[in-house]
Amino acid sequence: MEWLIITSVSGLASIGSATYLYRYIRKRESGTPKMQEIAGAIKEGATAYLRRQNITLAVFVMGMATLLGVLFSYTSGIFNGVSIAVAYVLGSVCTTVAAYIGMSAAVEANVKTANAARKDLNKAFSVAFYGGAIMGLFIVGLALLGVSILYYVYNTIFQNPQVALDTVLGFSFGASALALFAKAGGGIYTKTADIGADLVGKVELGIPEDDPRNPAVIADNVGDNVGDVAGMGADLIDSYIAGTIAAMIIGAAIAATTGETILIIIPFLIKAAGIFASLIGMLFVRVGERGSPGAALNRGTFSTCIAFAILTFIIIHFLDLGEAGLGIFFAATAGLVAGVIIGITTDFFTSIDRTPVLKTAEASQTGTATNILSGFSYGLMSIVPPILGIVAATLASWHIALFYNVDPFYGIAIAAVGMLATLGMIISSDAYGPIVDNAKGIAEQSGLGQEVIEIADKLDAAGNTAKAITKGFAIGAAALQVIALFHAFTMVAGIESVNLMDPNIVGGIFLGTMMPPLLSALLILAVEKNSFRMIGEIRRQFKEIPGLMEGKAKPDYAKCVDIATKGALKELLLPCLLAVIAPLATGFILGTAALAGFLAGSIFTGTIFALFMANSGGMWDNAKKYIEAGAFGGKGSEAHKAAVTGDTVGDPFKDTAGPSLNTMITVMSLVATVFAPIILLLI
Amino acid sequence: MEWLIITSVSGLASIGSATYLYRYIRKRESGTPKMQEIAGAIKEGATAYLRRQNITLAVFVMGMATLLGVLFSYTSGIFNGVSIAVAYVLGSVCTTVAAYIGMSAAVEANVKTANAARKDLNKAFSVAFYGGAIMGLFIVGLALLGVSILYYVYNTIFQNPQVALDTVLGFSFGASALALFAKAGGGIYTKTADIGADLVGKVELGIPEDDPRNPAVIADNVGDNVGDVAGMGADLIDSYIAGTIAAMIIGAAIAATTGETILIIIPFLIKAAGIFASLIGMLFVRVGERGSPGAALNRGTFSTCIAFAILTFIIIHFLDLGEAGLGIFFAATAGLVAGVIIGITTDFFTSIDRTPVLKTAEASQTGTATNILSGFSYGLMSIVPPILGIVAATLASWHIALFYNVDPFYGIAIAAVGMLATLGMIISSDAYGPIVDNAKGIAEQSGLGQEVIEIADKLDAAGNTAKAITKGFAIGAAALQVIALFHAFTMVAGIESVNLMDPNIVGGIFLGTMMPPLLSALLILAVEKNSFRMIGEIRRQFKEIPGLMEGKAKPDYAKCVDIATKGALKELLLPCLLAVIAPLATGFILGTAALAGFLAGSIFTGTIFALFMANSGGMWDNAKKYIEAGAFGGKGSEAHKAAVTGDTVGDPFKDTAGPSLNTMITVMSLVATVFAPIILLLI
Repeated sequence: MEWLIITSVSGLASIGSATYLYRYIRKRESGTPKMQEIAGAIKEGATAYLRRQNITLAVFVMGMATLLGVLFSYTSGIFNGVSIAVAYVLGSVCTTVAAYIGMSAAVEANVKTANAARKDLNKAFSVAFYGGAIMGLFIVGLALLGVSILYYVYNTIFQNPQVALDTVLGFSFGASALALFAKAGGGIYTKTADIGADLVGKVELGIPEDDPRNPAVIADNVGDNVGDVAGMGADLIDSYIAGTIAAMIIGAAIAATTGETILIIIPFLIKAAGIFASLIGMLFVRVGERGSPGAALNRGTFSTCIAFAILTFIIIHFLDLGEAGLGIFFAATAGLVAGVIIGITTDFFTSIDRTPVLKTAEASQTGTATNILSGFSYGLMSIVPPILGIVAATLASWHIALFYNVDPFYGIAIAAVGMLATLGMIISSDAYGPIVDNAKGIAEQSGLGQEVIEIADKLDAAGNTAKAITKGFAIGAAALQVIALFHAFTMVAGIESVNLMDPNIVGGIFLGTMMPPLLSALLILAVEKNSFRMIGEIRRQFKEIPGLMEGKAKPDYAKCVDIATKGALKELLLPCLLAVIAPLATGFILGTAALAGFLAGSIFTGTIFALFMANSGGMWDNAKKYIEAGAFGGKGSEAHKAAVTGDTVGDPFKDTAGPSLNTMITVMSLVATVFAPIILLLI
Repeated sequence: MEWLIITSVSGLASIGSATYLYRYIRKRESGTPKMQEIAGAIKEGATAYLRRQNITLAVFVMGMATLLGVLFSYTSGIFNGVSIAVAYVLGSVCTTVAAYIGMSAAVEANVKTANAARKDLNKAFSVAFYGGAIMGLFIVGLALLGVSILYYVYNTIFQNPQVALDTVLGFSFGASALALFAKAGGGIYTKTADIGADLVGKVELGIPEDDPRNPAVIADNVGDNVGDVAGMGADLIDSYIAGTIAAMIIGAAIAATTGETILIIIPFLIKAAGIFASLIGMLFVRVGERGSPGAALNRGTFSTCIAFAILTFIIIHFLDLGEAGLGIFFAATAGLVAGVIIGITTDFFTSIDRTPVLKTAEASQTGTATNILSGFSYGLMSIVPPILGIVAATLASWHIALFYNVDPFYGIAIAAVGMLATLGMIISSDAYGPIVDNAKGIAEQSGLGQEVIEIADKLDAAGNTAKAITKGFAIGAAALQVIALFHAFTMVAGIESVNLMDPNIVGGIFLGTMMPPLLSALLILAVEKNSFRMIGEIRRQFKEIPGLMEGKAKPDYAKCVDIATKGALKELLLPCLLAVIAPLATGFILGTAALAGFLAGSIFTGTIFALFMANSGGMWDNAKKYIEAGAFGGKGSEAHKAAVTGDTVGDPFKDTAGPSLNTMITVMSLVATVFAPIILLLI
């Protein structure tokens, strides 16, 4: 019972801080009427998209809830059936609310950031960062509160942790399925608008980025919010929840034989420590007189990590677990260290002043082909350090656990919990990026002058690196978390060995390895297909609206927003359904052992493709920025043209396909775990 | 003993036929003095490259032979040590000779094909196809003869099949290591020259492909021979040998307990059947009055498959194995069927008249970025059918084997043997592509007129499809073969279970999955680095040689050949050494179980990346050709420029990185298997 108090206090503290920051942001000024008008249009478009997405997905959620309810009523009685259906719906709602709040904060913060940038860098930085922090803190607070109360209620009803967790798993499945939709749909939306606006605007007509004459410019800004902010928020909350539950399931399986029920609760306590640590770390995010925003973000991240280690140690110490306590503490911090390593190495590959970006920029001089080949190759190479980090974290947490007589699977799960515990801070610096990006857009469209745009650029460059670090961090954590989920699945399905010498399992692995590349391809093609529609519409407007090119007439922004919205919702269905159907098909046709192989296979290639796509995309982006800063002929040169093309190729890599993979693997693991009892019963 | 007669007869028949065809080709006319001059320069450059490569690699071979000899003398006595060192050197020599002969035939056939194209399509087709057939038949004959005699000798000496096979494994390792060097080096060479020639010639100066004014044009033509012909030949012979030996090792392990020594010999007999089937199939490769060269190549492939099934059935029938015979027969044909399916589905993704190519060509209209994204996505999607084929073949051969009371691992190994048995025919149609490509180059450089070039184009288009089919076939077969090698490794290392629930093994898998993308990146960067050198040199020549652009002066071809040669040999070392060192490091640090995981991981991503790269490259190539045939504005349009860039990106995908992966996985598996006894002894 005390644990519920701790999770509730931390959850409420987090939500409370988010509310406080939200009021702070709201009180800032919004600037000129022109700025307010643009910000209003962005807000309207973003809200409209989310509303339409939620209506569309409500159908899916209801259908899936009914299916779950009926199936589990049939296998475990009506009460369990209803419980899991309710938990599923609650999970979906939780993700939806998180995405909605995050986006509201972002569309509030963008214009305030732009306005603050008219004064100075530090002010603008604070507004942008706090804008992201609202989302980060709200999300983790809501998630921890939701899961812990739900578990408490069901455990009180069932008086059996394992049965309670089966139900809570439904919550996680709901959260993840919705996250996949939000991430994929938002990702398609944002890149549809971005590519459409760039190809016609920048490439064909030679007008600058974020030029108000471009009909797709509002859709582009909306995209940053629905894709990068709302989608990312939905995605991370689902990892956060799934990782916690995976550790709890493993803990419950151990507790069933040893009686150590505290193992089920420890993941909650670690998450609570992470929330407090994030709150502490945020206090350190300040830009000094001559300090850089990037350094401030890094400082915040490192302070959070240190605070987290200390708090976790204290909590574990008070639990008085003897040497097992040390094992758990070291496993949790091993995850943390691996997370930092993955972050730093990812930074090397995407940072604007390091070899990969420089070489890619240099290669732009000989044309687009060499730019693409460079970015592609360095992107592939960039997977090496994080994978070494993941392997080291897996082996370290395993051996630490063994050494201190903790179950080794539990050790890995705790490492995953540790990696994602500081999510409040991670999201804050991750959401900062698109807020600044939007602020810059607003500044350009309202003609705030070069100085303001330069400040926004500085903030943006720092944002990109922080974004890359936290993306790598999130992906690395996701890898450990799905390894934990994989073990949770084997426990639920009663599998004791997943032997590579069994061809059924090898077949399953091969099928699983196919899924991440396949999903990537479908999402990229969806972006392309939808951006063709967008390109057609932009061209039409420039042709049919007299005076548009001269800036005398206003484009029809709403029409472009509409195309992006409809297209994204239409195109996301196939890839997302595949994530639900493929594991079920594998399980029902080849059995649960093959399904275990399937999950493992998807983890292997999912990790590789997610890292590769995120990093090569970031690299191309920064290679372009490096040239725009004056290198190799600067803006307008042939090298710049090549770099712009590279950046366009990288866009759906880093903002659509790459970040969706993580969620996709989680969804597949959860589908498998939720349905495992049914598969076992039916085949 | 009878088996040795069968393998010897088939091997000699194959080599005899190759010799006959070689005489046939030599007797054809070489055309105008200009043509002979160009062909002479290509021959000279190609021979010079191979000579230099062989000298460089001789050092490596001697070093490795010494290492093997010393290590195995230490563990198993001097005689065994010397035996394995000798076998290793013989394997290296075998690959080298195969590459050399293949290339000699190709450089002989190219000019004769160009000359025949001055008369008619059918004649030219025959010359090109027979040119490829010389290599195909010679290689498989040599390989089968070599391995069977070696095994016979060592088995007679040791009187123990397992010890004899340990030694023969050294032969396979030698063949594969050399193949990796040949493939990677040749791949870097060919694309260095190709990209350099294209970027300066076509893109910067606007002169046509294969224009004699381009200083890199001879290097480009040489590249087709050393990369596509010699490299490919070396690569396939190593798969052919490794697959056979994997099946024999598994057979020997079974025979050690059951006494069924015939299982060790069956792979030889199936290969012999494949050779005869290839000879029969080649008789069907004829272009009718209005027939297309592509159809003729397909007809040859299918006839070979049918003949192979019949011959295998007869041989197995005579062995009188009862129901086990049926199991082996069906397993062998399952591999064959899977091979054909993989071939046909690959064809869909690269064929010039199917959706993927059409959509990619269409996407070129909106610029390079959309062309790249399309080709990339369809390339990723193209992995689905072949992987389903591989999974089906694995499961089918496993269950067939179980059903007929054959050891299931043996069943999979036999499926792999079946898939590669018809290699004579596969290589013939694969080598045909670069021969035609070269013929076209010679025709253009010697000004043979539009009609001749059109015939060469027709041949070339057919060649590209056949190349894609056989590449997919080879890759698919390679996947099964490395699965068999994986089992052979576990048998040699005495591993009974490779459990995904052991983090050591998961760590090994993660490390293994990294290798194929890493190798791809290193090879592509090598191509890029070397092509920058080439670009510099071409630009220098155009600047410093007066009258070159006007066609009044001759460029310095030799200098470009020299740059390509030196660069390729320099750049291939790191990636190739990695393939030897990484598995050893994994084995020594994490143990043999993790090494098994490592091999499995490399198989999973190796298959995916090999398929993706080969297919997207082929797709970009044909999208460009489709536009050049007049679609979307045809040559010189903006769409064409985008498609040319896509093709350049695809070049190192399909001709350098993609095809090297297969060999790399084989090398890593063989390194692991050869060194397994030493690792077991030392850790």
